[in-house]
Amino acid sequence: MAKKNAFYAQSGGVTAVINASACGLIETARKHKDKIGKVYAGRNGIIGALTEDLIDTSKESVKDIAALRHTPSGAFGSCRYKLKSLEENRREYERLIEVFTAHNIGYFFYNGGGDSADTCLKVSQLSKSTGYPIQAIHIPKTVDNDLPVTDNCPGFGSVAKYIAISTREASFDVASMAKTSTKVFVLEVMGRHAGWIAAAGGMASTDDCEIPVVILFPEVNFNKGKFLKIVKEKVNKFGYCSIVVSEGVHDRSGKFLADQGLKDAFGHAQLGGVAPVIANMIREKLGYKYHWAVADYLQRAARHIASRSDVDQAYAMGKAAVELALKGENSVMPTVVRTSNTPYRWKIGKANLSRVANVEKMMPDSFISRDGFGITKRCRDYLAPLMQGEDYPPYGKDGMPRYVQLKKVAVKKKLGKAFKVK
Amino acid sequence: MAKKNAFYAQSGGVTAVINASACGLIETARKHKDKIGKVYAGRNGIIGALTEDLIDTSKESVKDIAALRHTPSGAFGSCRYKLKSLEENRREYERLIEVFTAHNIGYFFYNGGGDSADTCLKVSQLSKSTGYPIQAIHIPKTVDNDLPVTDNCPGFGSVAKYIAISTREASFDVASMAKTSTKVFVLEVMGRHAGWIAAAGGMASTDDCEIPVVILFPEVNFNKGKFLKIVKEKVNKFGYCSIVVSEGVHDRSGKFLADQGLKDAFGHAQLGGVAPVIANMIREKLGYKYHWAVADYLQRAARHIASRSDVDQAYAMGKAAVELALKGENSVMPTVVRTSNTPYRWKIGKANLSRVANVEKMMPDSFISRDGFGITKRCRDYLAPLMQGEDYPPYGKDGMPRYVQLKKVAVKKKLGKAFKVK
Repeated sequence: MAKKNAFYAQSGGVTAVINASACGLIETARKHKDKIGKVYAGRNGIIGALTEDLIDTSKESVKDIAALRHTPSGAFGSCRYKLKSLEENRREYERLIEVFTAHNIGYFFYNGGGDSADTCLKVSQLSKSTGYPIQAIHIPKTVDNDLPVTDNCPGFGSVAKYIAISTREASFDVASMAKTSTKVFVLEVMGRHAGWIAAAGGMASTDDCEIPVVILFPEVNFNKGKFLKIVKEKVNKFGYCSIVVSEGVHDRSGKFLADQGLKDAFGHAQLGGVAPVIANMIREKLGYKYHWAVADYLQRAARHIASRSDVDQAYAMGKAAVELALKGENSVMPTVVRTSNTPYRWKIGKANLSRVANVEKMMPDSFISRDGFGITKRCRDYLAPLMQGEDYPPYGKDGMPRYVQLKKVAVKKKLGKAFKVK
Repeated sequence: MAKKNAFYAQSGGVTAVINASACGLIETARKHKDKIGKVYAGRNGIIGALTEDLIDTSKESVKDIAALRHTPSGAFGSCRYKLKSLEENRREYERLIEVFTAHNIGYFFYNGGGDSADTCLKVSQLSKSTGYPIQAIHIPKTVDNDLPVTDNCPGFGSVAKYIAISTREASFDVASMAKTSTKVFVLEVMGRHAGWIAAAGGMASTDDCEIPVVILFPEVNFNKGKFLKIVKEKVNKFGYCSIVVSEGVHDRSGKFLADQGLKDAFGHAQLGGVAPVIANMIREKLGYKYHWAVADYLQRAARHIASRSDVDQAYAMGKAAVELALKGENSVMPTVVRTSNTPYRWKIGKANLSRVANVEKMMPDSFISRDGFGITKRCRDYLAPLMQGEDYPPYGKDGMPRYVQLKKVAVKKKLGKAFKVK
């Protein structure tokens, strides 16, 4: 059998544009039917491969596949599941080979972040260790923007745009109310280890639209005294202040601020966010009236205000993955290479997975302002292009975006025995 | 002096489109310079009138006034300040007359919700009781959608659109993750007394895009057993469930669910939202992994995804207010009159303020499904037109919306003495 089928799976937390990568991959594979057979998607990520629960994407219409470009989330289902090393869990790798063999799969496309790059690397090594021919290509995706080598990660630009816009909008609101009511607004954002998303809050303020924004990064140990001082200064100067706080903010000892040991009236432990902690601190120490918001999934699902750069790059990564496969590549990931800031220009590069797996790219020091509460011009120059352009989904008469829900027809199982995922 | 100036003020919580009303009012007044002199805006609402802190809108460029149409929040500042009755606080009314007289103000335009309609009514009565000629026109604005007579309130349609879209997007996210991770998503929305905004969450699910949404209305006493049962049913059927909860949800005794007497590790009282309370309940009783979000100001400031119906109506209300004034009307409010659902058609009506002030319009029973956790077809037919159409603001090269910050040039004070607002 010269013509092999392809396996595609989505991994880890989903984004507003991961389906655009799926769209780019499937549309490109469909153009090369002479070389690539069917594209089978794993239902709920790699678990679908292990349990032989494959979705036949050829059953989806051209229109529905095209609609993936403007549909947020993982259309085939994702999962949080990391394969252990071959030594620790040979059983899972053997099962993958079984499923790949049964369905004549020669291409493994894995769409995810750092953990999935590692899984993809391990799968690419199967070829050597087992003799089963497989080309494993990783497609970058993460709102955390923490993959190395690539200039940025598809998924991040849209979150950045959402957080920057939301911070600007809420700040306009607070500015209106500050005279007699709310003076401080706190927005909690994602990013437990790296402050990329929090940094985007700083983009709310620009030369032509000044807004007092204080950012709390996970990279900067929380200092209560300094923090309260800068908030007070901002309120004194502007009449109000907006605070963008990363969920991962912690003090010098590493203790998360969100972890306040909250108990309800009955003594039960309560899990709260960091936003209300900051808000209460403001109230107690400065006495300002406040409001707080927790964006949570809204930020990474907000396809309605996705960045066009981001959508374009997500699509391009899916397309490039197929093209790399057709060139015979294995154990690589397409990357974004920035060639110019103004005008923004980028091209597609390539990284070996051994350089990507298990490496986290943190915010460089040069992106955080000296006081630790803001972003530098270098950071702005980096972020702005990633947020550039709008890419609106189509809307119905009911005012709602038309996101697609796929048919997800299962491929007939060929293996007799079930496989239990641990 | 035949030609009188106009006073305009924004009142209460601001919205994504209240500035569109300001835009309609100022642009229309500028077309009638033969009859209306300058439009003075109150800095921070009615407080600006009391303290003679007026903004001369004639100093703002045509372009900046036009940009108000796509700028969220209250551009002139708003406040939460309700005038007491004439008997209780004659001093404030006398002061208003002083300021109006000093600045030759004959038109009083007040842009707000139920409380401001009451203030506007009182000002309209000044004419009779004091002999000072003033025409007071109220312009409806409230995200709560609780003003009577008018079919709906400018500001609400955009919040509804934001909440419906956000619920759909986050639900797509949860659906992707549900196999191995989050199964329940909780979104807390505004609306302490009326469930209009929560109802909009129900619009996330449509015939062509089914999503399991459970709504907790302030109109329905919270019943923990029934609630947990329906969530479990939804998760069993769909694999996941989204919950949209109004901040005002309370039990049969009237106790707010958000009021859980939270204490931190040091015994300090903590103010949390209702979303984490619901989320913890799900975890404790059903054991599902959850995520929660609190939209707070983001929902009412989200001009980037405003409803076109809403923007059009907000503008039209501002324009109509001036036209009513030119017709010699006093003590009235322009209203939205719905004439057809499909296609959506509406026209402008008129309500006497005595019918508007101090009346709250709640969700009709016929809009809430029998089980108390969803919306009916009648509710959908009512909501859909209000969310119809998009009205995107312009964006810059940095990917950010271009909202205007006005110059807000103060009118020279003419009164010697300062006035202290209590």
